[in-house]
Order: sequence, then structure tokens, then C-alpha cells
Amino acid sequence: MKNAQSGKYRPYPKIDLPQRQWPDNTIDKAPLWCSVDLRDGNQALVTPMNLDQKLELFDLLLKLGFKHIEVGFPSASKVEFDFLRTLVERGLIPDDVTIQVLVQAREHLIDKTFEALQGVKKAIVHLYNSTSTAQRKIVFKKEQDDITALALEGVDMVKSRAASFDGEITLEYSPESFTGTEMEFAAQICNAVTARWGISAERPVIINLPATVEMATPNIYADQIEWMSRHLDNREHILISTHTHNDRGTSVAATELALLAGADRVEGTLLSNGERTGNVDIITLALNMYTQGVDPGLDFGDVNTVVDVVERCTDIETHVRHPYVGELVYTAFSGSHQDAINKGLAYQRAKSEPFWEVPYLPIDPADVGRTYESIIRINSQSGKGGVAYILEDKFGYQLPKKMHPEIGRIVQGITDVEGRELTAEEILGIFEKTYFEVPQYIEFVDMAVNSETSKSGIVTVKLTYRFEGEEITSTGQGNGPIDACRKALGEKFPHAFVLRSYSEHSCGEQSSAKAVAYIEIETEDFGAFFGVGRDNDITIAGVMAMFSALNRAYHS
Amino acid sequence: MKNAQSGKYRPYPKIDLPQRQWPDNTIDKAPLWCSVDLRDGNQALVTPMNLDQKLELFDLLLKLGFKHIEVGFPSASKVEFDFLRTLVERGLIPDDVTIQVLVQAREHLIDKTFEALQGVKKAIVHLYNSTSTAQRKIVFKKEQDDITALALEGVDMVKSRAASFDGEITLEYSPESFTGTEMEFAAQICNAVTARWGISAERPVIINLPATVEMATPNIYADQIEWMSRHLDNREHILISTHTHNDRGTSVAATELALLAGADRVEGTLLSNGERTGNVDIITLALNMYTQGVDPGLDFGDVNTVVDVVERCTDIETHVRHPYVGELVYTAFSGSHQDAINKGLAYQRAKSEPFWEVPYLPIDPADVGRTYESIIRINSQSGKGGVAYILEDKFGYQLPKKMHPEIGRIVQGITDVEGRELTAEEILGIFEKTYFEVPQYIEFVDMAVNSETSKSGIVTVKLTYRFEGEEITSTGQGNGPIDACRKALGEKFPHAFVLRSYSEHSCGEQSSAKAVAYIEIETEDFGAFFGVGRDNDITIAGVMAMFSALNRAYHS
Repeated sequence: MKNAQSGKYRPYPKIDLPQRQWPDNTIDKAPLWCSVDLRDGNQALVTPMNLDQKLELFDLLLKLGFKHIEVGFPSASKVEFDFLRTLVERGLIPDDVTIQVLVQAREHLIDKTFEALQGVKKAIVHLYNSTSTAQRKIVFKKEQDDITALALEGVDMVKSRAASFDGEITLEYSPESFTGTEMEFAAQICNAVTARWGISAERPVIINLPATVEMATPNIYADQIEWMSRHLDNREHILISTHTHNDRGTSVAATELALLAGADRVEGTLLSNGERTGNVDIITLALNMYTQGVDPGLDFGDVNTVVDVVERCTDIETHVRHPYVGELVYTAFSGSHQDAINKGLAYQRAKSEPFWEVPYLPIDPADVGRTYESIIRINSQSGKGGVAYILEDKFGYQLPKKMHPEIGRIVQGITDVEGRELTAEEILGIFEKTYFEVPQYIEFVDMAVNSETSKSGIVTVKLTYRFEGEEITSTGQGNGPIDACRKALGEKFPHAFVLRSYSEHSCGEQSSAKAVAYIEIETEDFGAFFGVGRDNDITIAGVMAMFSALNRAYHS
Repeated sequence: MKNAQSGKYRPYPKIDLPQRQWPDNTIDKAPLWCSVDLRDGNQALVTPMNLDQKLELFDLLLKLGFKHIEVGFPSASKVEFDFLRTLVERGLIPDDVTIQVLVQAREHLIDKTFEALQGVKKAIVHLYNSTSTAQRKIVFKKEQDDITALALEGVDMVKSRAASFDGEITLEYSPESFTGTEMEFAAQICNAVTARWGISAERPVIINLPATVEMATPNIYADQIEWMSRHLDNREHILISTHTHNDRGTSVAATELALLAGADRVEGTLLSNGERTGNVDIITLALNMYTQGVDPGLDFGDVNTVVDVVERCTDIETHVRHPYVGELVYTAFSGSHQDAINKGLAYQRAKSEPFWEVPYLPIDPADVGRTYESIIRINSQSGKGGVAYILEDKFGYQLPKKMHPEIGRIVQGITDVEGRELTAEEILGIFEKTYFEVPQYIEFVDMAVNSETSKSGIVTVKLTYRFEGEEITSTGQGNGPIDACRKALGEKFPHAFVLRSYSEHSCGEQSSAKAVAYIEIETEDFGAFFGVGRDNDITIAGVMAMFSALNRAYHS
């Protein structure tokens, strides 16, 4: 890479903004949203949308709740013209939705635009010309006054057509490439435009201040918005609109800080479609507000559908880590994250007040139509918590906490070797193989409990098992059937052991429910082991758990 | 979507920061960069990297210029342990690179970590525990003092191992989930940690303040960094490190504003890999600095290779609009953008000083190993400028400016119908079909110029052409061969016309060069038309251009 200090690039100039206010503000209400998906988004596609795709996207925008929708640049091409006519002729524009159209300050383009608008009840005519230093010098070879004159000619033309138009026309003016324009000139040309339009409470004007190219850290854009807000005449009749691009990856931030700085309206697209790096993503902005308890006024309760429609229309895939909607953003991989989420979800279910406080999940996935199901995957970094969570969440096994490290280590040993994530089914397979399919050194066959003795609390069992090729039946007494079985084994079984812990639960629904029992034994010869048993009869399940533990100990 | 004001979500609290300084600052030097691709990035992959992939990525990080590289959590799994041992045993760690390892405050994990570090000359041991309100309450069920005690136990353990370690150990401490932690407690635990470590000029400490989950607008993170910077003891011996995630899509902004607020060091990944929405993207941060004339200290002069390696290692595709590196970010689609870029590139080539000022291109694509070639594609919004640019840039046709609208309209008519972008070759095809393959109403056959008459400036030609099935030869005189040909036609040709403009240039290299001529004629019967001719002989090319225009006029 070339030397950065060669003079090829220069720092963006600071904005002179004494007593800056915006860093003390918070976003406490939603802006007026304007979708430019069908214009800025569409014009930046390798394959622009066809009519059916535009109609599908328009319908989605309505469903989400957009009230300002820029539908195109109808004077720029036949396709754009025809789309607007289709909306009008099929009566697809609701009364509370204002259609916006982009146009340059040229007579034939403005005429064509009004021709396209015939029959529209409420429209925003979005007039723009480029005001930046670079474009004035390099592209237009014009002075500031000529650029202002061009804008005013455009205003005059729109004003005269609007006067005879059978519908409500609002003017939007963009000093295009605003972020490359001197602030003084930007304010001057906007003030000239609003004055010429005859701004008033009845004739408000939208002043859109685009970061056509993002050129500085986002605090500078906020400074610019606050500066403009102070220097625009008739500020009370102006809607300051932002329109940010993402060249420096900070369009969401620039928009948010601009809202702190007084912007009233936001132009953007779904999933950041638009020229080059895209326009700001309205989904992210809206859900950022939502997670702060601010009603965004747009409904993203089903992000999967939104993503489906946008991907179908734009043919651009959404990144797996895209905030709120990416495939992987509700997935935790590390063991400590999984454990914390597990506890957080349990805590959230148990408590009475609604405040969402689940670690590592800044939003409840259910609020946007996503689910917890895919949250936890198991790989070599998942650790014990994740494995136990999967076994409980997917398969109903409520492993005692003391057992988590053992099964965690076993699964991790396998992921270390495999070097990949395991599916929930694979984890179940490992669990079953480990506890249910142990080679049978000593095999349980049958048992009978003598319940007549139970008044004293002492239980007598007759246990049948297979050991060293021989089927053996023996009896034992203890303070429960498992203890009694342990005693019954004592006579022939060579390895002394004690029971250290026991737990059980039912698994599955109603009549098909099985009992699952977990037992930890401590053997003299092999150390401590867990065993798991599963049977229709809870007593049998417990005894099978003991045999599972014994066999695991022996084969260790 | 549920009601946002139901109490489920609350606004993030403000930071009490009187006389806030950061909004007045600018980024004028690069931070110390730390890559966490091999740890935070790797742990968040569906399929974690294998050894070969880790080695390839490590090698890339070295080439890019990273001096701090977090290589993993060696006590957490065998794979992570083995990777560090491989780096040591193969001698892959340069002397000026410090290896960083993550570990929790547990004795056996810290022992395992130091075992993995044997033979490393300079290492950062990165100790963390979670300090947030939610995790204290929900996950650990511990008070602030217990959490501090846990951190200090960890410090003691690292300190004692470091004392006997044969290499240089720097402590990094992270109050994990910092953005969910009360500021006072965060400062208190960090100050306790640095004091216990024995911080001094010789024993600096890295205090990493992670936005483990991004929870607020990025200005709040900057406020937190400035607040911490004011409240950390021995600030001069501390490197404040940021580690931002992208849950709200503002990790780049949060990091940049944190740098304004005094952060010294940045942890992040290439292309935003990492848990959920990913860590901050260091490529974007570094190139943002570069475009402000600040040397980032990392070399992204070949982003295509960086993207290739990262995609191969992570199996995650880069978004087509990713800042600086996405497939579409150096592509302009709209006609006005294309025209401005075209002029900007010409201006940039012509001027003597290096300052980059090409509209819509915030960086010279060549500086990061991208090219102009793909900048302009043609779709229904491209307009005339784009078509002319393609024809000149790709195929060497320097169309006169007056001709741009004509060919622009013709191409646009086709893109309108096709509803898709055209390739450069398709545009060439349209151009050739339009001007070279016109149906031959009148066909040029041959001509001879009588150069003896040239002293007077008057040229005589003998022109042979085919018209209405008849081959005709006639002579004409004029003030040049084309004018003379027009006169020669006059006798038999029924449509009067005049020549309005003419231009020519050579096309191609040296001996294979052809002459190309452009002529505009104005006909009495059909209006004005351009024609183009191409031949080894410049005079013939001019006459062929006239025939091209005549035939186009007739067939209009």
C-alpha cells in the first residue's frame, strides 16, 4: 500500500460547532422513514428489478409500515416510468402513503415526471443537483452561483407544474454530495430553495442532506446536521432528512448520531442495498430503537420473510452475521456464552417482569420471528454447558449438574478429533453410546421387589443378572431398591462400590413417558462414574443406571 | 412485533461525563492492532479452522503487519493447545510479534496455558471474567466483591507463573461484558487488578474494555472509554484496548469514537468474523484511516488476497457491498455517477498534485489492489456517459461528446427491454451493429484521391459506390476528400445532406492500428445522424463514416 502521508489523502475538515449539543441527546422517538429501495437500491443492482419484483417489494414496504416510498426516477427510463404508472393504474398506493420521485433540474425531465405522477394523490418531488467542491470543479465547471441558479430553476419548474397538478406536491431538495460541500454553501443553497418554493407551515420542505459518499467519522456527520439545523431558515417548517451511504462502514452510526443532532427523517433501504457499499440499513436502525424501548413505527416481527423478499428482488445474499437477521446472529458457540444464555433464558422464563436480560442476546429472537432452536451448536469450544443444554432442550434429558463436566469432556474429545461442529443428533448419539450401550461386563436381567417389607422402610429385592457367562439370582435388602440391589450384587461381584448420588425424572409425554435415572457410583478400583438408565418403570431405570455406571467403571 | 414500550426493553443509561472531550478530537495516528481472528473469530465458526488453515491465517496476519495476535484459548481444548505448540516448535513467531492467549481465572487452566507458552519469547496473558450486572445476578450469583476477588486470584496465579517463566509476560485484563457493567465497578475492578499486578512503567497493563454485546449508540461507548480513561489509576502505564462487537451494526463507529476518546489499542478481526454479528472489521478501520492520510501501520495493498485467505479459512462469504473489499464497491451504476467518475479520473490523471478527488470513489481502487475495470457496468439507469466510457476504456473508441446521447439512448432502449445489465462486450456489439452493420441502402465500393490538385487545397476524388443495384463511379471536388465525396454523390443521390462535424483518431497499437472516423450529417429528409468508419486508411475511414451515417439516416 502506498504511503498514507504522500498527500494523496487528507483529513476531513472539522466542523466549527461551538456548544455542540447532540452527544447529550438520546433517540426517544422514531424518525419519518423513507424507503429508497426502489430507486437508489434498484439502480445499484447488477440486474435491476423487473416489474413483478418491484411490485412485490412495494407490497412488502407497505406491510412493514413505510409512509414515504421513493419509487424511482420516472423520467430516466421507460421501466421506471411504467412502474409508477402501474402503481397508479392498479390503485396500489394507499391514501396514507406518499410516493416520492427523483428528478434533476431539467425541463423535459420535470415534465415527464409530472406526466408519470398523474393520478397520484400525494407525492414528494425530490429535486437534486450536485453541490460538492469536487463536482463543481471537475464535473460541472461551474461556480457556486451557477449551481444555485440551477437549483432555483428546478424549483421554479416544479412549482409551476405543482400549481396545476391535481394532487398534493411536497418539495424535497438534496444538495447532492452534501458531505463534499462547504457547510456555508450548503446552507445558502438550501435557504435559497426553500425561500423560492415559498416555505410555510402549509408548504413544508424536506431538506435531504446526503452522505452521498461517506467521507469522515460519523460524529462529523452529526456535527454537520446540527450545524445545518442551526443555519437553515424557517427550521420549524423543514424536515431535515438523512441519506447515508456506507463507504466507511458507519452509515448506521452516522444516521443515529444525526438523529441525536436533530434530523427528522431517514432515507435508507432494507439490508443496505444501494450504490457501492449501499445505503443505510433501515432494519438495523429500527431494531436498534426497538431494543431501547423506542417504537420504530415499522414492523420487523418476521425478519425471515423480509430477507426472503429482498433477496429474491435484489439477488444479493445477506451476510450470515448481518445484525438482527443474519443466519448466525442468534447462535452462541463458546461454552461460557452457551451456559450464560441457558441460565438467562431460564431466569427470563421464571421471573415475573418482562425486562429482557439474557446475556449475549441483545434482543429476544422471538420478537423478530427467529427462534432459540438454532442458538446452540456444539464445537470444540462449546464446553460442558452446551452439551447439557442440547440434551435437555432437544431430547429432554435433565442431566444432574455434577454430570455436565463428564459428558462435556467426552463430547469435546470427539469434536477435537473431528475438528468440526456436531449436530444435536450426533450429541445424542454420543450420549446414548456412552451410557446405554456400554459393553456388558455385568448384565442386568430382571428384578422383583418384595413390597411387603416396605413398612419398615427396608426393601428386599430378588435380582437376576449375568456375570462371567453365568446367570445369577440373589437377594438383597436395603433402604431402597437400588441400595438393595447393590447389596444383592455384593455376594458375587468382586468390585466394592458405594452410591454417591441419584436423580430421576420422567421424559416424554403422558403414556409414552419413560423414566430416566442418573446414578453416580464410587468404586474402590476405578474411581467415580455416572450411569444412566431408562425404562417404563422408574425402579428398573434406577437399577439399570447402576449397571450402566458399573460397566463404565469396569471398561474405563 | 410486540409493543416496544411494553417494558421488555429499556433505554441504555447515559454516562455522566462532564466536559466531554472526544467529539473535538480527530484520529491522527493508528492504534496498536490486535487480531483476534484465531480466537474470537475461530470460536464462532460453524466449522472451526483446522491446523493448516490456522497456519495460513497466522501467516497472513504477519504479512499484513499485526504485532499482537491472539492465537487462542490453549487451555480450553487440545486443538488450541496444539496450534500454539506448533507455532513455537516450528519457530513461526517473529521476534517483534507478541502472542496473546486467553484464559479464565482458574488454576488448572492457567497452568495449562503456561505449559502451552513454553518457549515463547513475548506473550500477553489475557485474563477475563464477566463483570456485568446481568451475569453477576443470573449466571454467577455473586456480589461485586466476589467477582473482584476472582479476578485478583487470577492475577496472583498469572503473576506467580510469570515470575518463573522464561520469557516476557504482559498482563491483559478484560472485565468481560463491560458494556453491561456499572462504570464505577468496572473502574474499581480494573484498578484492583493493575495494583495487584504491580503496574509500573516496566510492567504496563492492557485494560481491554469489550463491547461483548453492543448495547447502545456508539457515542455512549466513546463516553465510557473517556470516563474510564479519567478513572483508571496509573493511566500512563495502561494501554486501553477496545474490543467491539457489531450487534447494532456500529462496531466500526464505536471503535473510531473510542479512539477519539483515548483508546490506545484495538482488538478485531478481518472481515468482521466473531461471535454472532462478529467483531469489528480491522480492514475497514485501517482503510478509513488511510483515506484520511493516516498511516494505519497495516498493509492492505492487496485486499483480494486477504479476502481469499479469510474466506478459505472461515468458509464465510464476503458481502458484495462490504466497504473497501466487496465485489460491487468500485462499481458505479447510475449515469450521473459514471459521468462524474469518468471526468474525475481524467482530471486526476491530468493534474500534477497527488490529492485524490474522484467523485464517488473515496479511495483509489488501485491502492488496495482493485482496478477501475469493473467500475462501470451498464444497466437501464446508466445513461450516456457510461456507454461512452466503456467504449473508450475497453475498446479505444473515443466518441465525440455530441455522439454520447445518441448511443446512450440506443443502449438504454435495449437495457429497458432486457431489464438487465449489459456486459462491455454486449455494448461493443450494439455499437458495431448500429454503426458498422447498417443495411446498405447505399454501399461504398472504392475511391481514389487525385492528390495533384491538393496544392490549391481543393481535392478531387473518384468515388465508386453501389446504389439501387447499380455500381456508379463519379467524381467530385471539395475542400477535403469527404467533402469531395459528398459532391461526387450529389449527382445521383436523391437526399441532400451537409456535413456537421468530423473527428478521427487511431485505435490500437503500432502496425495493427486502424483509423476511426466519426461524422455527423444533417439530411434534409431525415434529420441529423452520426456515422462511424474504420479502416487502415484514415481517408477511407472518413468516407465510410459518411456512408454509415447516410445508411442510418435512410433506415431511420
